Amino acid sequence: MDDRPIGVFDSGIGGLTVLKEITEQLPGEDIVYFGDTARIPYGTRSKETVIKYVLQSFRFLMTKDIKAIVIACNTASALAMEEAQKEFDIPIIGVIEPGAKAAVSMTRNSKIGVIGTEGTINSQSYQRKIRKMLPSGEIIGVACPLFVPIVEEGWENSDVAYMTAKKYLLELKEHNIDSLVLGCTHYPVLRYTIDKVLEGKVTLVNPAYETAKAVKALLKENNLLSSKLDGGVQRFYVSDDPEKFKRIGGNILRTEIVSIEKVDIEKM
Amino acid sequence: MDDRPIGVFDSGIGGLTVLKEITEQLPGEDIVYFGDTARIPYGTRSKETVIKYVLQSFRFLMTKDIKAIVIACNTASALAMEEAQKEFDIPIIGVIEPGAKAAVSMTRNSKIGVIGTEGTINSQSYQRKIRKMLPSGEIIGVACPLFVPIVEEGWENSDVAYMTAKKYLLELKEHNIDSLVLGCTHYPVLRYTIDKVLEGKVTLVNPAYETAKAVKALLKENNLLSSKLDGGVQRFYVSDDPEKFKRIGGNILRTEIVSIEKVDIEKM
Repeated sequence: MDDRPIGVFDSGIGGLTVLKEITEQLPGEDIVYFGDTARIPYGTRSKETVIKYVLQSFRFLMTKDIKAIVIACNTASALAMEEAQKEFDIPIIGVIEPGAKAAVSMTRNSKIGVIGTEGTINSQSYQRKIRKMLPSGEIIGVACPLFVPIVEEGWENSDVAYMTAKKYLLELKEHNIDSLVLGCTHYPVLRYTIDKVLEGKVTLVNPAYETAKAVKALLKENNLLSSKLDGGVQRFYVSDDPEKFKRIGGNILRTEIVSIEKVDIEKM
Repeated sequence: MDDRPIGVFDSGIGGLTVLKEITEQLPGEDIVYFGDTARIPYGTRSKETVIKYVLQSFRFLMTKDIKAIVIACNTASALAMEEAQKEFDIPIIGVIEPGAKAAVSMTRNSKIGVIGTEGTINSQSYQRKIRKMLPSGEIIGVACPLFVPIVEEGWENSDVAYMTAKKYLLELKEHNIDSLVLGCTHYPVLRYTIDKVLEGKVTLVNPAYETAKAVKALLKENNLLSSKLDGGVQRFYVSDDPEKFKRIGGNILRTEIVSIEKVDIEKM
């Protein structure tokens, strides 16, 4: 048993979808969440810059006596996982591997789509992981940079969202995919619109859910589960003004965010 | 006469529209451009963070022996102009005042619209400046966070752009505005779509053009014009990978970007 908290890292607020899944599957675990809100979005930045930001964020989380780190951000998982594992001696779980595994187990025709930010798609991380498990598979990645601002605008079920999804998903439809990885923490919010465009014919894979399952398995395996079965406490840290995070984050979690502090992340 | 370069600052690449106007109106001036590409977009960040980023950027520009600074970024002009003028003993020009002045001189019915990022609109900077010059005016500001990613996607004349503009501009149409400030460096790229939605009835004000005119007047007044009449040299600095900037920037400027270097801006 290990009652130290789990560290959850994201480039901003989207990682709360992963935190939510973890607290549902592991209600006794304490969590320290860091969202690098002063430097979002990671999705359009170079690999070098993302690695630097992730290492700084991890250095901060390590000051909180955590027992494991979950990288909730797809871009950070895609670009900085290896470097982070080299530098920190602690179990680290990203969202890519659990998401890729689920897609492989769900596909019937071996045609899998992946959508995400420019950084995630160009890194080929999902595509490579899936291909390794399913060498005969056809994997098509599409970057959808407008999806995050559409979700942040609250327009997820609007005509703009529908037209945008139609443009982005056309190629995937033409390839006749039967499962689609929602490779960005914001995208599950758009699932109804995406499902409508794909005419209900495609299984949508939510890496947040799969990652929480993987976290549970990892903690069990390493005898790191909390002794509490319920009542886990969450503390939040962000690198920009906490007010906006509190407001939008409260909506995602459907509970009020109480403990939140600003961190000067560039000093880490 | 003063042959030192002009410093042009932007949060990213959009400021090149201002640089372009300056080189057209002042072809003999050397320019040092800094784009804080590792930390774009400024438009959704808190005032405190924007001020910090702007002061760091100015500290860097000051190492280049410049004679004046142009803040091409609307958000930075709106939130950090005052602080910057307090800290640096050099003429500083933002885009807000020239844009506001032009709108006031162009309106006939005193109903003026302003569009920009969340940061620019919420700061009320344009609205306050215009109201000061035109106390009886009706000024309506609307934040349009999807416009920048649409431009960066190259979708400025698509149906998505049209539907988005229709949503954002509805309120302005209902108020019967006759002039509209395009209060973000990216927005002039959308002018055809915006004009279509507004049915050609509204004069669009481009602060980039107005700012270049103001720079020329300021240099003349202070006897700071370059002795060269032509052949000004441009050097570019960015805080993230220069390749993307080079590619998209070359398109905006319609010439190749030759001299470009990466700067570690967090150290400034």
